[in-house]
Amino acid sequence: MEQVKPNPANSSPQTPLSFLEKAATVFGDCPSIIYNDTTYTWSQTHRRCLQLACSLSSLGITRGDVVSIIAPNIPAMYEVHFAVPFTAAILNTINTRLDARTVSVLLQHCQSKLLFVDYLLRSLVLEAISLFPPDAEVRPLLVLITDDDQDDDDAVDDSDFCCTYERLVKKGDPGFKWIRPKSEWDPIVLNYTSGTTSAPKGVVHCHRGIYSMVVDTLIDWSVPKQPVYLWTLAMFHANGWCLPWGIAAAGGTNICLRKFDASIIYDLIEKHGVTHMCGAPVVLNMLSNSPDNKPLKNPVHILTAGAPPPAPVLLRTESMGFIVSHGYGLTETAGLIVSCAWKPHWNLLPAAERARLKARQGVKVGASSEVDVVDPVSGVSVKRDGSSLGEIVLRGGSVMLGYLKDAIGTRKCLTQEGWFYTGDVGVMHPDGYLEIKDRSKDVIISGGENLSSVEVESVLYTNPAINEAAVVARPDEFWGETPCAFVSFKAGLIRKPTEKEIIEYCRAKLPHYMVPKTVVFQDELPKTSTGKIQKFVLREVAKSMGSSRLSRL
Amino acid sequence: MEQVKPNPANSSPQTPLSFLEKAATVFGDCPSIIYNDTTYTWSQTHRRCLQLACSLSSLGITRGDVVSIIAPNIPAMYEVHFAVPFTAAILNTINTRLDARTVSVLLQHCQSKLLFVDYLLRSLVLEAISLFPPDAEVRPLLVLITDDDQDDDDAVDDSDFCCTYERLVKKGDPGFKWIRPKSEWDPIVLNYTSGTTSAPKGVVHCHRGIYSMVVDTLIDWSVPKQPVYLWTLAMFHANGWCLPWGIAAAGGTNICLRKFDASIIYDLIEKHGVTHMCGAPVVLNMLSNSPDNKPLKNPVHILTAGAPPPAPVLLRTESMGFIVSHGYGLTETAGLIVSCAWKPHWNLLPAAERARLKARQGVKVGASSEVDVVDPVSGVSVKRDGSSLGEIVLRGGSVMLGYLKDAIGTRKCLTQEGWFYTGDVGVMHPDGYLEIKDRSKDVIISGGENLSSVEVESVLYTNPAINEAAVVARPDEFWGETPCAFVSFKAGLIRKPTEKEIIEYCRAKLPHYMVPKTVVFQDELPKTSTGKIQKFVLREVAKSMGSSRLSRL
Repeated sequence: MEQVKPNPANSSPQTPLSFLEKAATVFGDCPSIIYNDTTYTWSQTHRRCLQLACSLSSLGITRGDVVSIIAPNIPAMYEVHFAVPFTAAILNTINTRLDARTVSVLLQHCQSKLLFVDYLLRSLVLEAISLFPPDAEVRPLLVLITDDDQDDDDAVDDSDFCCTYERLVKKGDPGFKWIRPKSEWDPIVLNYTSGTTSAPKGVVHCHRGIYSMVVDTLIDWSVPKQPVYLWTLAMFHANGWCLPWGIAAAGGTNICLRKFDASIIYDLIEKHGVTHMCGAPVVLNMLSNSPDNKPLKNPVHILTAGAPPPAPVLLRTESMGFIVSHGYGLTETAGLIVSCAWKPHWNLLPAAERARLKARQGVKVGASSEVDVVDPVSGVSVKRDGSSLGEIVLRGGSVMLGYLKDAIGTRKCLTQEGWFYTGDVGVMHPDGYLEIKDRSKDVIISGGENLSSVEVESVLYTNPAINEAAVVARPDEFWGETPCAFVSFKAGLIRKPTEKEIIEYCRAKLPHYMVPKTVVFQDELPKTSTGKIQKFVLREVAKSMGSSRLSRL
Repeated sequence: MEQVKPNPANSSPQTPLSFLEKAATVFGDCPSIIYNDTTYTWSQTHRRCLQLACSLSSLGITRGDVVSIIAPNIPAMYEVHFAVPFTAAILNTINTRLDARTVSVLLQHCQSKLLFVDYLLRSLVLEAISLFPPDAEVRPLLVLITDDDQDDDDAVDDSDFCCTYERLVKKGDPGFKWIRPKSEWDPIVLNYTSGTTSAPKGVVHCHRGIYSMVVDTLIDWSVPKQPVYLWTLAMFHANGWCLPWGIAAAGGTNICLRKFDASIIYDLIEKHGVTHMCGAPVVLNMLSNSPDNKPLKNPVHILTAGAPPPAPVLLRTESMGFIVSHGYGLTETAGLIVSCAWKPHWNLLPAAERARLKARQGVKVGASSEVDVVDPVSGVSVKRDGSSLGEIVLRGGSVMLGYLKDAIGTRKCLTQEGWFYTGDVGVMHPDGYLEIKDRSKDVIISGGENLSSVEVESVLYTNPAINEAAVVARPDEFWGETPCAFVSFKAGLIRKPTEKEIIEYCRAKLPHYMVPKTVVFQDELPKTSTGKIQKFVLREVAKSMGSSRLSRL
């Protein structure tokens, strides 16, 4: 057996890039991208990506360089997912809602060589560049992505930009031979985490990791051939959970859009026959609470993750005809590494019970992945009893290579025992399903009891008046911490509940120590650019309130 | 970027074995295997495989050992696909239709340590063992798979066998920790090719290769969750194209069966609501020509490969409600590495044109695979014109590690340039679709013209009287070779065509040099155990006929 071994015929690096070539061969005449009045076919997208890659190479972009983009979900954003790594460079997508200072820090941190800039973000980027120190080693070339259908160069009578995106596409050779990775472990993307809890970190993934996430997602979500995929999840957010490559693999149609609200989404679903979409629970909330909501003509599969979806939101969304799948992942896992695989007999359960089960994060997505909940100090698995809290740890092909230029941060979360420590707190149910209870930092310790803010929130969400809820720790002289709820109400309420009523509502449904001692009403809760509620902001507010009065009663 | 690299959290070996654990977690209560009156659930199958693996380990089976099985598509045959590699041993499935001499040669060649024997193959195996030389280094332990529902040990009052299969399952510990591969390149299976053209060769595949084939097949065939899969393709044949692992990955139900004919297949399809099955074109022919055939109540997906399916057979099969997908692979590629990906607009074409397109082998299945047609001497790609013949070459994750103990054979087909030379002759169409024209040995050279026997056969298959047809070279003093057709007729014909009529039929549809000069009628054509017509047998017959008379006219 020793004589048979890996050989050049079976060792081609695993990479998601080759999905595009196959899409062009099989689905060449079918729509790849639809954006306003523009439609591309897979032949055209293949050609455009090769052309852009050729132009980037001509500009000197080469193996290992970082190329950044700051843009919404427009066709250019999709194309760079192939075109940039076609040059063996590393794609860095930047969150469009960051401030100039942060954008500047990120660009300097990764020494980005070139930055594609959506025309609406021009001034943000120019400000970010102006913040570079005069002696900065690397300054990115700037390429302007012009207005949607405008593709001439007149737009850039602008010495800040070297040229337009369309100009680069046009002048490239479609016969360009894309540059293959030397190894499947070569980096392909760099994503800065949006940082609900800490400073942004540069997560680096390799070709093999992204490839794993693509095939795992297609199989786990049972994506059929030629889905019609609506881009309601930002591609700058963990590369849209790897679906830019996944939709190419399935030969589907990407419905791009610059910004979205419920009415735009409903229009596009109807117009294009959307079959699949993704989004944080906040998207589900928006869709089901919108005045534009209406039962769907055909079922739409929606994959959600990023926070445990409150049961009432799940129920409302499903009742409209969405087929909700729920999963869990982090930027560090390139997409959903855990999903709530649905058991057929659960369909027989009452709706509330179904929602409770679906709100759990679930089981590993990929065959070679593993998920566990462990004591963060000893690393020993907690009991599979659905109540013993521990830290969620993961392994699998899609776990990142590490954080860029942060060996300490990398070592801290990637252990030699082969686990990625997520910083998330969860329980393992007896049936092997994971359920998140909180981010480590979101656990509230009141009178020595650990309590999960998520559990309190899920009770708040059952209150018919409440639109959004977040619970954080408020410092307390006596208890150490007490739960403090931030709440926004639904629009159009005739009478808004009082703080006392909310507290009584919770008291009827929760153990005493878990009931919020404080309730703060806000018009809208602060959110990250990806729709997650910014608990660290609320935590600051709660902290500034000082010790709770009620808690001493 | 150099600091971020592969780490223990993202480097778990890719292996198809972990699909079983996930199936047990998610689909534990759902049927995994149905066989006659026996039904197992995924929990039970998971448990039984661990128990069997435990017992095998206790018997001394260890990393790198070869464990063989000779059995039809019964539950044991399915279970060993997990249980044997769970011990880090290598699974070797043996074709049930081989003779004792060949079985003996194979067992000695791979030094099999243990052989599972279906009770109906007992005497074949004992004869094979009796042919071992007295000084044989290794003799396999024999384990008897008893009659279908019989699971006690009384059956083995038989000193030739160490115990029964069920006994091994029963006495094993279900808490056994399966032994993981040290590397994803570790061997997992050993398959001897059935040898239409040459002596059997031992094809070795690794965990990564099988894993690749499983995910590629699930995605390419768009296998949904919980398919009901009917085992009409022998698991001993290239591990049933990797679907033992694939059906676990999809949480489906395996309908096992000991032997099959059209009436059994139709019964099982109806009884169990079969959704998916595989088979060589000879299975399609059987299904569509059977007197038991009837339109299906629900569509059944059938994946076919192994020979180009004749257009009339495709048409008949589809008209009954089967959804036929066609692919191409070899034992050396672990399954279908090429498939005829269907373009939506082809559905608008006339039926005959659709069948012509579907009979092409197609495009690469996996993203990281490649397929080409090259000049076998220079290795240069032939023109993509649909007519320039060349040798089909392949690369991709599922290409074998090599032939066991055959370094020369391995070097001959796996080149340093990273291609596997298949020995098959094909053309590349302008649209990038591969079409096989012949096995290298099946090309007939008549008067200096290369002619493809498959093209002649496909014309013969359009004749309404013909059931099966095979064309081989007959030696000829004048032309070198001439095409010689072997033909069997459909049952129940009122008048059978004459040799002259068949030749005239071909003359109306083929260039003169391609028309068979001889037609031989047979009741049934000789076939390999996997249903391929044994052209080497026919070639011998044609050779023994000497030079053709007609050719000198």
